[in-house]
Amino acid sequence: MPNKRFEKLAAALENTDFDAIALNPGPTLTYLTGLDFHLMERPVVLVYAPGKVPAIILPQLELQKLSGLPYELKAHPYGENPAEWGQSFRNALFELDLYGRTIGVEPRRMRVLELRLVENGAPGAHVIAAEQELASLRLRKDADEIANMRRAVQIAQDALEATLPQIKVGMSEREIAAELTVQLLRHGSQPEMPFSPIVSGGPNSANPHASPSERKIQPGDLLVIDWGAAYEGYISDLTRTFAVGEVDPEYRKIHESVQQANAAGRAAGKPGVACAEVDKAARNVIEAAGYGEYFTHRTGHGIGMEGHEEPYMRGDNQQLLKTGMAYTVEPGIYLPGRNGVRIEDDMVVTENGCESLSNLPREIRTVG
Amino acid sequence: MPNKRFEKLAAALENTDFDAIALNPGPTLTYLTGLDFHLMERPVVLVYAPGKVPAIILPQLELQKLSGLPYELKAHPYGENPAEWGQSFRNALFELDLYGRTIGVEPRRMRVLELRLVENGAPGAHVIAAEQELASLRLRKDADEIANMRRAVQIAQDALEATLPQIKVGMSEREIAAELTVQLLRHGSQPEMPFSPIVSGGPNSANPHASPSERKIQPGDLLVIDWGAAYEGYISDLTRTFAVGEVDPEYRKIHESVQQANAAGRAAGKPGVACAEVDKAARNVIEAAGYGEYFTHRTGHGIGMEGHEEPYMRGDNQQLLKTGMAYTVEPGIYLPGRNGVRIEDDMVVTENGCESLSNLPREIRTVG
Repeated sequence: MPNKRFEKLAAALENTDFDAIALNPGPTLTYLTGLDFHLMERPVVLVYAPGKVPAIILPQLELQKLSGLPYELKAHPYGENPAEWGQSFRNALFELDLYGRTIGVEPRRMRVLELRLVENGAPGAHVIAAEQELASLRLRKDADEIANMRRAVQIAQDALEATLPQIKVGMSEREIAAELTVQLLRHGSQPEMPFSPIVSGGPNSANPHASPSERKIQPGDLLVIDWGAAYEGYISDLTRTFAVGEVDPEYRKIHESVQQANAAGRAAGKPGVACAEVDKAARNVIEAAGYGEYFTHRTGHGIGMEGHEEPYMRGDNQQLLKTGMAYTVEPGIYLPGRNGVRIEDDMVVTENGCESLSNLPREIRTVG
Repeated sequence: MPNKRFEKLAAALENTDFDAIALNPGPTLTYLTGLDFHLMERPVVLVYAPGKVPAIILPQLELQKLSGLPYELKAHPYGENPAEWGQSFRNALFELDLYGRTIGVEPRRMRVLELRLVENGAPGAHVIAAEQELASLRLRKDADEIANMRRAVQIAQDALEATLPQIKVGMSEREIAAELTVQLLRHGSQPEMPFSPIVSGGPNSANPHASPSERKIQPGDLLVIDWGAAYEGYISDLTRTFAVGEVDPEYRKIHESVQQANAAGRAAGKPGVACAEVDKAARNVIEAAGYGEYFTHRTGHGIGMEGHEEPYMRGDNQQLLKTGMAYTVEPGIYLPGRNGVRIEDDMVVTENGCESLSNLPREIRTVG
């Protein structure tokens, strides 16, 4: 049985300079092969050259994963001694006639470990980033992929709703994050989640990338919860902001602005619209409210098998949306040292516009 | 206040060719700086050159993480547009006088993304693996680190004991893994765990790297559970093998052999002994029992901030153990297509021998 995704890769490499692609464990390798390897201290590399049987270099003790594959894949296993790695790489790259050729890699995934083995295993080869060619493969999601993402969103939403009644004043951010993680698992998330929940209250909520701390939430805090689930290798990534008891009226005002910005960002996407326009739609609302300087990040990022992937909703990104692209809309306002707000949904571009996979209430809700 | 761990790095670089070290997010960066960054689509790189103020290149929106650091660190932030990355790298590397110099990196951590930015940001520089120099930093654990590892082991043990009574015939491997993960969190593991639990029953237990599947456990299975917790950035990694109801007498026999091999491996470690001797001690027992060909992997790996790190307990590794080194002892026997056994403990080398941080019963216990 031919592997249709290898054929898709072959098409993506047509009219490029790439003679082959080398991939280490990660979503693209899984997308192409259906195989799931962890990134470990031992190298695992798939080498694909159009028109040839692909090769995989891997530890002997991982060989069982290849049994029953419905397509051809030539294994080059090595034993426990790292001194054997080089020979397996040389054999694979020689058999694929890649000495002196141009080999593309994923710059955010390929490590120096595998890079040097590929470079040394294929003398004279040029190993360069094939970022666009590889990102294009997973950019437009098919119906099965969207169904998995929808399920990942539903698991995340159900898990949050199960967590909210348990949040009390005096709980630490870490305790809330742990409880939410428990609920994500109970509701069916894969144990390997896209990221650990961000739970940040009060001044910590003004840091968009805060890690949950031992700080206990208290009345007057805004509480930002940014979380996601994983289902069949596809993920969700949502954010909602809550009031702990009574909060400063300004905090309600910035929440209102972010909510409007989120709505404008969600409404802006459709086929043919540039990513920059989605960013602009959300940003305009926050700038008009006078908080432009406190919206310190892009409006969103692509989502699918990775938490962050193409396309990016940035003001300088003229990439045009197409059906099946999926991304977050997550404007925020962060008042340094005080409090912050972010509201994030997961969108998929449809024939006529775009759809939010997430539908949890976006209004400010009170917890604690 | 001087950063003592930077001083340790400076000492490790003495008498080497390295003029500087460049690190992207991961345990070594955290070990040196106390800072915790995620590996993301945006590059974050720390550059350390002995005798100079270290530099960090990072997104503007991560700048808050640097506030209140008790030592000097020069930030080179960049904005949302990736076109700004190059300039931040050039500035940092120019200020540290690294054009044309030799810069060391972690080959298992540094990606092509950051590598190319460092190479292009420091014209003429040689960027090469500084594997031993960097691994040496975290190789011998101090008392605080061992205390964290001890706590991570205790959390893992308590979580397993809370899970065992819930395991019933007919549960799937995934259900058991999810319940164990819940218990790890409830008992205090950080949400970012070293790895997801491996739960593999029956024929799947004969695959040392199986992922939990939908297969339901049934009487006659061996059940391998390989799990760990994280505490303050330090991890544990344990394995026990259980009988589901009555099992084939040969399975009890291989369990007995593995238990003896585990004991021999645990007893073998002390200062001055080569890692190969630990491997040999465990392997000899299994070979004497006639199952040598079914013990298909090394006896153990180092453990600390990472699930797998130096030193490795391999037959070809003549590295000598020293006090404070920590590693797993995890012999196994895997009968292909049938069942497998592994028993794993976490060891720390002491003045006179070594100590197992884990003390869960190793005898075969019956579940279900």
